[in-house]
Amino acid sequence: MRTFEKIADLRRYLAEMRAGGKRIGFVPTMGFLHKGHMALMRAVKEDPEVDLSVVSIFVNPLQFGPQEDYRSYPRDLGRDEELCISAGMDVLFIPAVEEMYPEGFATSVEVTGVTEVLCGRSRPGHFKGVATVVTKLFNIVQPDCAYFGIKDAQQFVVIKRMVRDLNLPVKIKAHPTVREEDGLAVSSRNVYLTKDERRAATVLYRSLECTAAEIRKGERDALRLKRMLTEKISAEPLARLDYAEVLSWPDLRPVDVLRRGEVLAAVAAYFGRARLIDNVLVEVE
Amino acid sequence: MRTFEKIADLRRYLAEMRAGGKRIGFVPTMGFLHKGHMALMRAVKEDPEVDLSVVSIFVNPLQFGPQEDYRSYPRDLGRDEELCISAGMDVLFIPAVEEMYPEGFATSVEVTGVTEVLCGRSRPGHFKGVATVVTKLFNIVQPDCAYFGIKDAQQFVVIKRMVRDLNLPVKIKAHPTVREEDGLAVSSRNVYLTKDERRAATVLYRSLECTAAEIRKGERDALRLKRMLTEKISAEPLARLDYAEVLSWPDLRPVDVLRRGEVLAAVAAYFGRARLIDNVLVEVE
Repeated sequence: MRTFEKIADLRRYLAEMRAGGKRIGFVPTMGFLHKGHMALMRAVKEDPEVDLSVVSIFVNPLQFGPQEDYRSYPRDLGRDEELCISAGMDVLFIPAVEEMYPEGFATSVEVTGVTEVLCGRSRPGHFKGVATVVTKLFNIVQPDCAYFGIKDAQQFVVIKRMVRDLNLPVKIKAHPTVREEDGLAVSSRNVYLTKDERRAATVLYRSLECTAAEIRKGERDALRLKRMLTEKISAEPLARLDYAEVLSWPDLRPVDVLRRGEVLAAVAAYFGRARLIDNVLVEVE
Repeated sequence: MRTFEKIADLRRYLAEMRAGGKRIGFVPTMGFLHKGHMALMRAVKEDPEVDLSVVSIFVNPLQFGPQEDYRSYPRDLGRDEELCISAGMDVLFIPAVEEMYPEGFATSVEVTGVTEVLCGRSRPGHFKGVATVVTKLFNIVQPDCAYFGIKDAQQFVVIKRMVRDLNLPVKIKAHPTVREEDGLAVSSRNVYLTKDERRAATVLYRSLECTAAEIRKGERDALRLKRMLTEKISAEPLARLDYAEVLSWPDLRPVDVLRRGEVLAAVAAYFGRARLIDNVLVEVE
């Protein structure tokens, strides 16, 4: 595996590879790699449309609010490098903050419409930071395709919309949420959880699965579903609910009555200092 | 010359050319081509770094304010096509508005810092519209280099900053302002001028040249220079001044005392319904 810290060096190398006909698959991450990232890396390795796999590790300050956990966000670069090698990645890109945001940096990319709900409402500026860094990473790596986990469902929608709107020449591929045995969605932030909080956090997926089951049984009243989801999570004493929503997919609009197609049930809640998110996509027959 | 209206068709063709090793030079325009555009097209044809020349014509609604001249902006596609052929362009891209901004379009690119002065102050949202469409065009054409006239000095600065900040893989090349015999900067909007306004409009370049001469003679007081520029233009009864500024280059900051390096003297004024801009870059010894 080749590791690059400088944009110019990475670009030179990738231009050579591209000129040799190699098609590039890209997995952008914030590091502290877990089973979810490993699944994305496996997907890029197994993709018949990819000849060269690139993974990036960059904790992007732009997507954290002033009161959020940018400073304490877990980092373990040594371990991450080992994991990237074991996953068979060809290239690792680990830029410093000053390399990505040099003095005088003054440009942003913003997607409206799908960013005013869910995490976009709870974390003002978050998706602007995500859209900006992903645009930069795409322009640096110029991948043929890039992989994102559907655990960050709204992020996936924002990036798909941005790629379409800005005509970015990259294909976005989704990967299902990876879960622990008891259903908890894997996340770098799970490391924040105490033993009791870790046990309590399973309430998210259990509640989402109940909601999905209700929909499959024929429930079509979105407000009733949302209320049920809210009550189930609030019943867990260690959970502090941020939001619980049932929205249309992929345009993330409020719905009264569920119609045919897919709907997204999505939740965010604090367990101690960990803010966790989870979701399920449900097919409405 | 090959003409494309659809993004997908243009992309397919350019991907083929790129795979064949052709380096792409790009001239984005709003059409109603004049001597300034012809000079840009000549520059791309003569560039030893370019094998394939692409020109686009798209009057971008996003960069016009609600009270501005989007609807009446001069258009003459038949004549423009002839001029592109005569300039030896290889490819012409003329997308419809719905092709560039399909339903649900919701993404924007914004540069701060250099957009709060000059035209950015007079035309809120203008440079956000410019940055967004130029990002789209760059992603569609994926040129190796792109050409912009320095008549739109602030636009040039905004695009350079955006390209650097977003790591867009394109080299930006500037071309000096092209002028009529009497010094008036050529512009598609000059067609709006009556005979008297056309004569009066030469006051812009004459005043800028006086300012440049004063700087060369040793004047270093920016406020005095700005006042002189303002007075000269205001002395013309058919001119309605929008702004007259002397700013640092290329960061467009206000200056008290001119220091070594380049400064930009820039003006905007209405003559009847035509809003015209002009500028000179002056080397301070």
